[in-house]
This record gives sequence, structure tokens and C-alpha cells, in this order.
Amino acid sequence: MGAPPGYRPSAWVHLLHQLPRADFQLRPVPSGFAPQEQEYQQALLLVVALAGLGLGLSLIFIAVYLIRFCCCRPPEPPGAKSPPPGGGCVTWSCIAALLVGCTGIGIGFYGNSETSDGVSQLSSALLHANHTLTAIDHLVLEMMERLDEAVRTELTTLEEVLTQRTELVAATRGARRQAEAVAQQLQGLAFWQGVPLSPLQVAEDVSFVEEYRWLAYVLLLLLELLVCLFTLLGLAKQSKWLVIVMTVMSLLVLVLSWGSMGLEAATAVGLSDFCSSPDTYILNLTREETGLGSDILNYYFLCNQAVSNPFQQRLTLSQRALANIHSQLQGLEREAVPQFPSAQKPLLSLEETLNVTEGNFHQLVALLHCRGLHKDYGAALRGLCEDALEGLLYLLLFSLLSAGALATALCSLPRAWALFPPRNPSASCSGSHLSEPFLHARLEPVPHLRSFPSCRRRPH
Amino acid sequence: MGAPPGYRPSAWVHLLHQLPRADFQLRPVPSGFAPQEQEYQQALLLVVALAGLGLGLSLIFIAVYLIRFCCCRPPEPPGAKSPPPGGGCVTWSCIAALLVGCTGIGIGFYGNSETSDGVSQLSSALLHANHTLTAIDHLVLEMMERLDEAVRTELTTLEEVLTQRTELVAATRGARRQAEAVAQQLQGLAFWQGVPLSPLQVAEDVSFVEEYRWLAYVLLLLLELLVCLFTLLGLAKQSKWLVIVMTVMSLLVLVLSWGSMGLEAATAVGLSDFCSSPDTYILNLTREETGLGSDILNYYFLCNQAVSNPFQQRLTLSQRALANIHSQLQGLEREAVPQFPSAQKPLLSLEETLNVTEGNFHQLVALLHCRGLHKDYGAALRGLCEDALEGLLYLLLFSLLSAGALATALCSLPRAWALFPPRNPSASCSGSHLSEPFLHARLEPVPHLRSFPSCRRRPH
Repeated sequence: MGAPPGYRPSAWVHLLHQLPRADFQLRPVPSGFAPQEQEYQQALLLVVALAGLGLGLSLIFIAVYLIRFCCCRPPEPPGAKSPPPGGGCVTWSCIAALLVGCTGIGIGFYGNSETSDGVSQLSSALLHANHTLTAIDHLVLEMMERLDEAVRTELTTLEEVLTQRTELVAATRGARRQAEAVAQQLQGLAFWQGVPLSPLQVAEDVSFVEEYRWLAYVLLLLLELLVCLFTLLGLAKQSKWLVIVMTVMSLLVLVLSWGSMGLEAATAVGLSDFCSSPDTYILNLTREETGLGSDILNYYFLCNQAVSNPFQQRLTLSQRALANIHSQLQGLEREAVPQFPSAQKPLLSLEETLNVTEGNFHQLVALLHCRGLHKDYGAALRGLCEDALEGLLYLLLFSLLSAGALATALCSLPRAWALFPPRNPSASCSGSHLSEPFLHARLEPVPHLRSFPSCRRRPH
Repeated sequence: MGAPPGYRPSAWVHLLHQLPRADFQLRPVPSGFAPQEQEYQQALLLVVALAGLGLGLSLIFIAVYLIRFCCCRPPEPPGAKSPPPGGGCVTWSCIAALLVGCTGIGIGFYGNSETSDGVSQLSSALLHANHTLTAIDHLVLEMMERLDEAVRTELTTLEEVLTQRTELVAATRGARRQAEAVAQQLQGLAFWQGVPLSPLQVAEDVSFVEEYRWLAYVLLLLLELLVCLFTLLGLAKQSKWLVIVMTVMSLLVLVLSWGSMGLEAATAVGLSDFCSSPDTYILNLTREETGLGSDILNYYFLCNQAVSNPFQQRLTLSQRALANIHSQLQGLEREAVPQFPSAQKPLLSLEETLNVTEGNFHQLVALLHCRGLHKDYGAALRGLCEDALEGLLYLLLFSLLSAGALATALCSLPRAWALFPPRNPSASCSGSHLSEPFLHARLEPVPHLRSFPSCRRRPH
């Protein structure tokens, strides 16, 4: 009868959690989540630095490749008009790379939406928890006010009416004491009152950050998509300036891709450490932030048979006091009403109050039970550690694919544009095979040009 | 302090719900969800039939287009070796159509995973509800057994020990009566006992169907992806037999796409009707299936301030009886233990039982409260009516894109293959521009062929 099956770390969490971590001196760092410790921060920064290294290496590779291509190409036989062999291969490898990039963009959109889903699950769980906590406070306040009102008005009236019979006055005073005891016990149940941490605020902060993260990724993905499409268009139209602009843009997007890869990898590693055993970290953090006792936090964060309800005693005492008030009111009704008919009205009103209070008490018991809040905790963890982490891994795959595709494109594009025919008035409108779909059909027969201005033809 | 914000119909639900529906005689059908009514079934079947009509029209269009192309092409000038104009346009429109198809496949994969997410959310909510319902039954059974055991052993021992003092025996008997009353009240709280409907079974059925639906879509998507890729390969290698096989496969996938579109549209329409006001339908269905009272079902399905807890009275009576037992035991401890020390052991054991029962009672109150089950209901509805419906709309978009792309490809492919050069030994290895990336680079210089076997060159 414990809590229903909650959060379990996924295989990805285990896998990422088992990767070795090291600080700047390359000393191994334990993989427990400790974002305050300098060593751990260094380990995460090292993951970012690895992506920087990857960027540097790929830039060096591209530079070396292009310099080799520019300076070391075999001397053309004098008078040879045909472009160097492998031109088609260059264009097609460029197109293939851009298509891989487009696949990566698709994966990136999916990953971005998955991450967004996970984070919105987290913030909706926080909102739900906030609702429960404020509902507890309000309910306790409402019950206390109701009891206080009953003590001040009906019980006082009753005492005044029954003033002639001491034992009835004593019973009324007994009920008053019990009601005051209930109010006092209830006060201790509003455990979130005055706590400086607001899940609502946390949810709003998380949503705010996530909104900008989502937007940044959408912009990056759209930028890369535009670069891919315009590069394809440039290749198809053999437009040199478009290809040059897109080469520069590709370089920019390559840098952004490696940068986002570093951030994603570090976040994924940190998240996997957090997600492999979140309870301890969250418990400590919440204890520091809220100042609540361990018994209450353990009850809500663990919520199993081993942890007893910290409110059990208060609830039982309140419940007994309410039952006692009820039996005292019953006694009074039996004894007093025949003699003092004016006591009936306050007695009925008191019983009504008691019934409502008992109903509210059951609602309070339900709200205070760990089931609801623990389920929110599990949903928040699942959102963060399953959906968001999965989305992050998809984004990592996107960055990887796009870095590879852009590096290949950057190697191929200058070679491809070197193969473009020189712009001259007669050739500027002729187009090529690739450019055909982009031009208007010209149906009037034009005499065939012998030297077709295409560089993608391989000699046979 | 009501239930936290639950399910709200989305804009898509409203939009789809407002579409007009008609039966086979084209009489308007009200858009309330009524799957048992013949009229409503006819309205959904009409949606499927619309997709069939679309398939028929697109097949007729393709046939007319191809017949027109075959029979009515302008007579070639005698001796003209060059292919007809617009060949490049045909190939490129074919490639563009296949790329649109590939985009559709990406959207389809996303939609399939989204639908799967939604349905798994539904079944996990059902599993959670099942957990709560069985937990209530087990808890009630456990409490009743515990009370029964206490009545049979400790209270009987106590009566035997205190047999000399009649008023103490009377108090013990009072406690026994109260315990029996609690057990009887508890029995009425296990409201799901003997109910023939098992949410676990429903969840398993839903997961089973969803598994096959998911698999069928993945197979369809992979089939279409393979058709797209092999068609592109066939065009690139100018392989006539591959293009012919892929044309036939495209026809098959076109039929499957229109078929799935019909099913998706009908499901989306039905789901929107269900989702626009699910409470009434679900309430009636559950009432029929379970035979439970309206008060209980309203309490769990609506869970707002207006609906009172149907177990309130039983809970209050049990609570009062437990409090009475406690005060009687306290009285007995005060009165009896000094005179009968052997009464202490059963009294302590009884108090222990009472404490455990009161703890369990609070857990029962929490489980019985509508919050938990209503949250599961909301999660199930959100899974079905937000995620699954959204995924279904993505799948609809996939079917639409793929039907359009395949129809275009089917129009273009026969024209493209008619433009392929005839297979002859000298041309079979020569390839074309498109085929270049697929062939090994042949670096040895080969003399240029004048009549390049490509049909995608436009005369200038």
C-alpha cells in the first residue's frame, strides 16, 4: 500500500553517470552531483572544453584540407578546358552533407520539443505541489477561523444560556477546551506557512529559462535549415556569391553547433549525476531552503512504509478532540434542550460547524498524506530525468550530425564554387542540370551549346 | 481548495468538434460522442469513405495524366535525337515530391511517437487508478482483520480478566460494539470490491492495441522511406527496373496512405467529439460497467466543491467510534489496571492496534479522497485528448503529404523513366550527373563522349 511505482533512473542516466570525470588537473572526480564543489564544476567545464577542442580540431582540419586543395593541386595540363576530375563527387558530397544536416535538424526539432515537454512536466508538477501546499495552509486557516468563530459566538451563547446548571456549563467549557485544542493542533499542521521557498516561483523561473532555451534552439535550427537550403540553392543556381555567403554562415553555425554541443554534453552529464540518486541532493537542498524538519521532508520525498507520517499524532489528537466535542454536544442536546429551548439554536449551529470541520478534516488528512506530493515529485523527476534528458540527447545528436555535416560542407563548398563556370553574359542565363528546376521553362528552341558551362561533368 | 486545474479541451478539439457530420443519407448528425448509435457510426464511416473518394480521384487523375502523356505527346520531329523539353523538370519535380514525402515521414515519426506518448500516459494513469483502488480494498480488508483479531483475542481476554466488575465488563463490551461498528462502516468503504471492471485490464488492452498500432505505423513509415530512397537511387542510377518496381510500390504506399488517412481522420473526429465533453460519456459508461452509484462516480469524476464526499458519513462515524474506543480504553486503563494487573497486557496491545488502525484510517481517508483518482482521470484525458490527438493530427499531415508526394511521383516517374537512355553496353557504365556520387571515382582520363546519355538537358 506504499506509494505507487515512482521514478527509476533510466539506462541513459546510468550510462552517462558511469562516464569518468576529471578536473582541470585531470584528477578523477567522483560522479556524485555536487554543483557547489569546485572540483565538480571543473569536471563539467572540462566537458565543455572538450567540445571547444573538437571545434578547434575541426577548424584546423578544414583549414589544412583547403590549403592543401588550393596550393597542392596537380598542375593543369596547358590548354585543358575541362574541370578537374571528381567535381561531381565534390558537389554531391556537399549535397549529401547538407541532407545529413537536414536530418540532424529534424532530430533537433524533435529533441527540442521533447526537452520542452519534460521541463513543462517539471513545472506543472511544481505548480501542482504549490497548489497542494497552499490548499493545506488555506484549509487549516479556514478550519481555525471556523472553530474560533464557534468558540467566540455559539459556545459563549450556550454558556450564558446554561449558566444556571453548573454541570452543563462545565460540559460546554469542556467542548470549548477541546475546540481550542483542535485549533492548536491544526496550527502545527500548516507546515508550509512562512516557508521562504515557493514552488510557484521555482516553476515560473524554470518556465522562463526554458522559454528562452527553446527559442534559442528554434532560432539555431531555423538558421541551420536556412543555411542548408540556401547552400543547396546556391549550388543549384551555381551562384558564387550565395555559396560564399553560405560558407561564412556555415562557419558561424559550425561554431554555434560545437558550442551548443558542449553545453548539452555538460548539462547531460550533470543531469545524469543528479538523476542517478536525486533524493539525497533534493532533500538536503530543500532542508536548507525551507528549514523544515527531516521527518517531514523524508515523509514526502520517500513516502514509503518505513517513514511514518509526522502529522499522525496531531491528526489523531485532533480527531479524538473532534469526536469528544461531538459526544459532549450530543450530551448537551439530550440534557439541556428540554430545559433550555433557547440552547437548541446554538447547539444545532455548533453541530453544523462540527460536521463541516470534520469534512474539512478529512480533506486535510488527504492533502497532508504523502501520496499526492510524492506523486508530483515523481512526475517532476520523470519530466526532468526522462523526457528532458532524452530530448537533450537528441539535441546532442543534432549538434554532432550538424557539426559533421557542416565540416564536410565547409571542405566541399570552396572546391565546388571553384568549379563554377566563370560568369559571362552568354553563360549567365544558361543554368545547369541542377539549376533547371529553379528556372522558368523556356520552351523556344535554342541551338545547343557545345561547351556546356558545367563543371560537374566527369570525363570518360 | 477544489481539485487543481484539470483537463480543458484544446483548440484542436473545438475545431474538429465543430466540423459538420452527416450520415449515409447526408442528413446532419449531432456531434455528441455516441459510438453505439448507428447514425454516428455512419458519420465516422463517411469520413473514411471521403478518404476512399480521395484515393479514387487521385488514381483517376494519375491515370488520365499518364494516358494523356502517353497518347497525346506531340510528334517528334524526324531524326531528332534530343529528348523532349522539360525532362529535367520531370526528374526534379519527382525528386522534390520525394523530398516532401521524406519530410512527411519525419512528421509521421514524430506524430507516431507523440500518439504513443499520449496513449502510454493514458495507460499509466489507469494503472495508477488501479493501484489506488486495490490499495483501498487491501487497506479496508487489513483494518477489518486487525479489528476482528482484536475483538476475538484481546477484548475477550479483557472481559475474562475483568469478569468480577460488571461496569468494567460493560465498558469492554462497549468497546467491542464500537469496534464491530467500525468494521461494519469500513466494509462499506471498499466500494470497488466485486466491481467487474478492472482498470488494469483496460490499461493492458489499450497498451496491447497501441503496440500494434505503433508497429504498423513504423512499418508503413519505413516502407515509404525505403520507397523514397530506392526511387531516388533508381533515378540517380537511371535504373529502369528499379524505378518500375518503385512505381508499383509507390502505388501500394499511396493506397496505404489514403487508407491510413481515412482511419486517422475518423479517429480524430471521433476523439474530438469524445474530448469536447468526456465527463458525461465516461460517467454513463462507468455506471453501466461497474454498477456503482451516481454519488460515488460524480464525486470522483467531477471532484469539485459542489459534490460532497459520499463516504463522509461513514468516515465520520468510524472516526468517532475509534475515538470512543480510545476513551473507553483510557478509562479501563485508569480503573482496571490498578486492581487487575493482568489486564495491562491486552490493554496495551489494544491501544497499539488502535494507533495502527488510526494511522491506516488516515491513509484510507487520503486514498478515498477524490483528489488522487481525479488527477489520474485528468492525466488520462490529457494523454488521450492532448498528446494522442496531437500525434494523430501529425499522422494525418504525414498521410496528406505522402499522398500528395506519391501522386506527384507517380505522375512523374513513368515520364522520367521514358527519358532514360536505352541500355547499351557503351552507355551502361557511363552514368550521368545524378549517378556520379554513386559510382566509384574513375580517375583515368577517358575521352569525352559527345552524345552524353542524359535526358535532363534542356535545349538552349
